[in-house]
Amino acid sequence: MLIVGELINSSRKSIAQALEARDEAYLKDLAKKQAEAGAHIIDINCAIFMEKEPEVMEWLVGIIQEAVDVPLCIDTPNVAAMEVGLSRHKGRAMINSISAEKKRWEEMLPLVSKYKPMVIALCIDDAGMPNSVEDRLRVADKLIPGLVEAGISEEDIYLDPLIKPLGVSGTAAVEVLETTRALREKYPKVHVISGLSNVSHGLPVRKVLNRAFAVMCAEAGMDALIADPLDRHLMSLVFAAEALAGRDKHCLNYIKASRAGKVVAE
Amino acid sequence: MLIVGELINSSRKSIAQALEARDEAYLKDLAKKQAEAGAHIIDINCAIFMEKEPEVMEWLVGIIQEAVDVPLCIDTPNVAAMEVGLSRHKGRAMINSISAEKKRWEEMLPLVSKYKPMVIALCIDDAGMPNSVEDRLRVADKLIPGLVEAGISEEDIYLDPLIKPLGVSGTAAVEVLETTRALREKYPKVHVISGLSNVSHGLPVRKVLNRAFAVMCAEAGMDALIADPLDRHLMSLVFAAEALAGRDKHCLNYIKASRAGKVVAE
Repeated sequence: MLIVGELINSSRKSIAQALEARDEAYLKDLAKKQAEAGAHIIDINCAIFMEKEPEVMEWLVGIIQEAVDVPLCIDTPNVAAMEVGLSRHKGRAMINSISAEKKRWEEMLPLVSKYKPMVIALCIDDAGMPNSVEDRLRVADKLIPGLVEAGISEEDIYLDPLIKPLGVSGTAAVEVLETTRALREKYPKVHVISGLSNVSHGLPVRKVLNRAFAVMCAEAGMDALIADPLDRHLMSLVFAAEALAGRDKHCLNYIKASRAGKVVAE
Repeated sequence: MLIVGELINSSRKSIAQALEARDEAYLKDLAKKQAEAGAHIIDINCAIFMEKEPEVMEWLVGIIQEAVDVPLCIDTPNVAAMEVGLSRHKGRAMINSISAEKKRWEEMLPLVSKYKPMVIALCIDDAGMPNSVEDRLRVADKLIPGLVEAGISEEDIYLDPLIKPLGVSGTAAVEVLETTRALREKYPKVHVISGLSNVSHGLPVRKVLNRAFAVMCAEAGMDALIADPLDRHLMSLVFAAEALAGRDKHCLNYIKASRAGKVVAE
């Protein structure tokens, strides 16, 4: 399971403050901690800065790449911030995200073609938030050939079925799981990713819902999560889920992780 | 999710000692704690006592029913112990278990007919441990009509697909999940139950595997678990899994459980 560490996001108050104060030590430390805890990619988001976002993004990419060796995920709907993030990033980045919405697609596609990053592609178009498995598949059927035509291999595409809060729709999780199964069947080389914590928005003890949903996602064949790698229970359950789903031969990865103290019961 | 509390089992050393010493206070306390933690039924097993098992079972049913109001699950392959357990039990018990093995079926069926308990029925016959979804469905197709003919309604049958240790078979969990989906589709009134902890036998940090498997079982439609209700993380995840699986309207049960302190993140 590929883990994209989600903690450096300006929608979180502590991060907005650290970015505002250009608190390099705090942000670097949080990036390091996420990578040490098992994040394969570190998401960076400074969308809250609006017109100053490109400037903050340039600084942020620079300091975080000084702190960790893993790639960064440039997380912004702002095309100027995305361009500066990609141009500043050493090695290949991930982007979060493109979608089939006409404006977003047309703005982001030239950057995708130019920088050839790993691409998170949201299953949404101008018809709005998807309401069914079919809606999502229909959008995926546009996104994948479009990205391949722009020079992105299927192995570098991460489709995000878009999870709604469970408190808003009782079938929110089931829809995403069914979409995941259908996408993995139809496009076996393409990855499926989810921003885990959206599912629990507005409900109590969110971490428990996020953890249970991560296990279900793994079982359905999802192979990437945007998540909090510092939640040791979450990471433990993901190791277990991979083994239970039959994707960890002889449970070797699970056993290795447990010996390294990365699988904890309490 | 119906929880059968598994802790009073003589295969556990502390329980064997408590039974040997007829330590009424200890056993009653463990039954109470399980019921308070959310067990709907308390499993009692004293199979380690061999020829003395019926005598120990009679005593055990008596003291545990003094301690808790929930039904007991009389857990024994010994027909004499089963008979004395059922005859001593006030109200309707559960039995663990009957199977399609000729000897077990012929011995247990008269007790099933006489006492009309809730019945855990193992998906195994004289062909031995099932190795596929098809093996289990074939046995279920014998068990269900046989039990119905003996006067048990489908709503009182709990099919156990029999989970093998994941360390022995990498597809152990996936087979049980697929069997569960197939059984719920074919026999919507019949329950599906699993003795959770078998899956983790021989592997490290067993609780984490048991918890992840419980979440997957809930998602697949399993509606009963033989499990440790004192594992607060397990119980928390089961509440979350039921909500995510769309079986908890408006998440009301999850929210209620969290308010009662039964959903915990740490």
